[in-house]
Amino acid sequence: MSLKMYDLAGADPLLRFSPYCWRTKMALAHKGLEVETIPWRFTEKDAIASSGQGRVPVLLDGDKVISDSWDIACYLEEVYRDRPALFGSADAKGAAFFIKRWTEAVVHPALVRLIIADIVKIIDPKDVDYFRGSREKALGAGLEDYVADRDAHLKALHAALTPLRLSVKDFAFLGGETPSYADYIVFGALQWARCSSPQNLLPEDDPVAAWFDRLAQLYGGLGAKAPRPAAA
Amino acid sequence: MSLKMYDLAGADPLLRFSPYCWRTKMALAHKGLEVETIPWRFTEKDAIASSGQGRVPVLLDGDKVISDSWDIACYLEEVYRDRPALFGSADAKGAAFFIKRWTEAVVHPALVRLIIADIVKIIDPKDVDYFRGSREKALGAGLEDYVADRDAHLKALHAALTPLRLSVKDFAFLGGETPSYADYIVFGALQWARCSSPQNLLPEDDPVAAWFDRLAQLYGGLGAKAPRPAAA
Repeated sequence: MSLKMYDLAGADPLLRFSPYCWRTKMALAHKGLEVETIPWRFTEKDAIASSGQGRVPVLLDGDKVISDSWDIACYLEEVYRDRPALFGSADAKGAAFFIKRWTEAVVHPALVRLIIADIVKIIDPKDVDYFRGSREKALGAGLEDYVADRDAHLKALHAALTPLRLSVKDFAFLGGETPSYADYIVFGALQWARCSSPQNLLPEDDPVAAWFDRLAQLYGGLGAKAPRPAAA
Repeated sequence: MSLKMYDLAGADPLLRFSPYCWRTKMALAHKGLEVETIPWRFTEKDAIASSGQGRVPVLLDGDKVISDSWDIACYLEEVYRDRPALFGSADAKGAAFFIKRWTEAVVHPALVRLIIADIVKIIDPKDVDYFRGSREKALGAGLEDYVADRDAHLKALHAALTPLRLSVKDFAFLGGETPSYADYIVFGALQWARCSSPQNLLPEDDPVAAWFDRLAQLYGGLGAKAPRPAAA
């Protein structure tokens, strides 16, 4: 068994910041599966052409090629069913899908408002034109203009995280007493910010920060040990 | 076995509009448990004094008295464990708790902006002073002022429902292929609006409307058959 995974990297190959790749790395660790990660940059489309699309994560499991973090989670659950479950039941999977939609529709956009101009500073020089061009077109604004008024955007992020905060005040994880794939989905979002920006976005006394730390410490500190950019 | 439940009612005792009571009624139906509902008004605190608090739902199961819709769901799951599960696993329960927090922090406030002035028209006359006084104090505004600018509030509701919309486009229920307690939590919010206001808040082609209808048709049309106020 030899698992490999294309993992988004910055100019520094140790900076691994994709929220979707973090979901997959946490899912693999949850299942106790070792993986060799291959640093990948946005413009290296040829390297993952066998997946039939242009984004990471891409997981290679023997001769199988699986893309899309959700599909990878479903694949791992099916193929490695004798290992700890990512979804304890069909309704847990359904609810995790809702949490994925919430994360992508609410949390990711709130984070983009804070970190998008930091990301462009850490990516590989060959990715910069592609990244800036595609993101500025999508956002309809220059990246630096988009993150102006940081105080308002930080307040909006904290408001957006309210349902998470109110959950993890009462339960250690979204999965209850133990972490589940739903946790890794939301963790991926905040780990994306942690590994691409030197900003600290959560007050220390925020229950979300404590929950994030619990997840970052799992699996030998997989999340906590991941390098992040130094403050300028 | 004889289950009874105090259920918030309007001046017309057939109008049953509490979002929390709807969660419990759907949960009881999911478990195939019959219940006798007792119409209750906001100011009838004495009737439910044995529950040690002043809100409904209150479930009476023999000599047991259980309040709080979440605690009732956990109670039903524990005591009636041989019947269909409300939570398929521990992580499903954790995720349902997140969906509860999301519903209460995001969906309920968006609905209050649209229906609070309608609710005061259908409640029992003896409840009106209490209801208007407590809500206007909490909201810091007159109820009619609070719902002015309906177009903006409707747009905000539709935006708030985005994660749900993106989930139920791909899955029939938040529980996946079959409904779970997480569905009933969010259903309760929209059924609250349906049973307290003559407004139709969702476009017919909204996937959320189709999902709501699927839930309303369950258990012999328990939700769909519930009376609602006529348009003025």
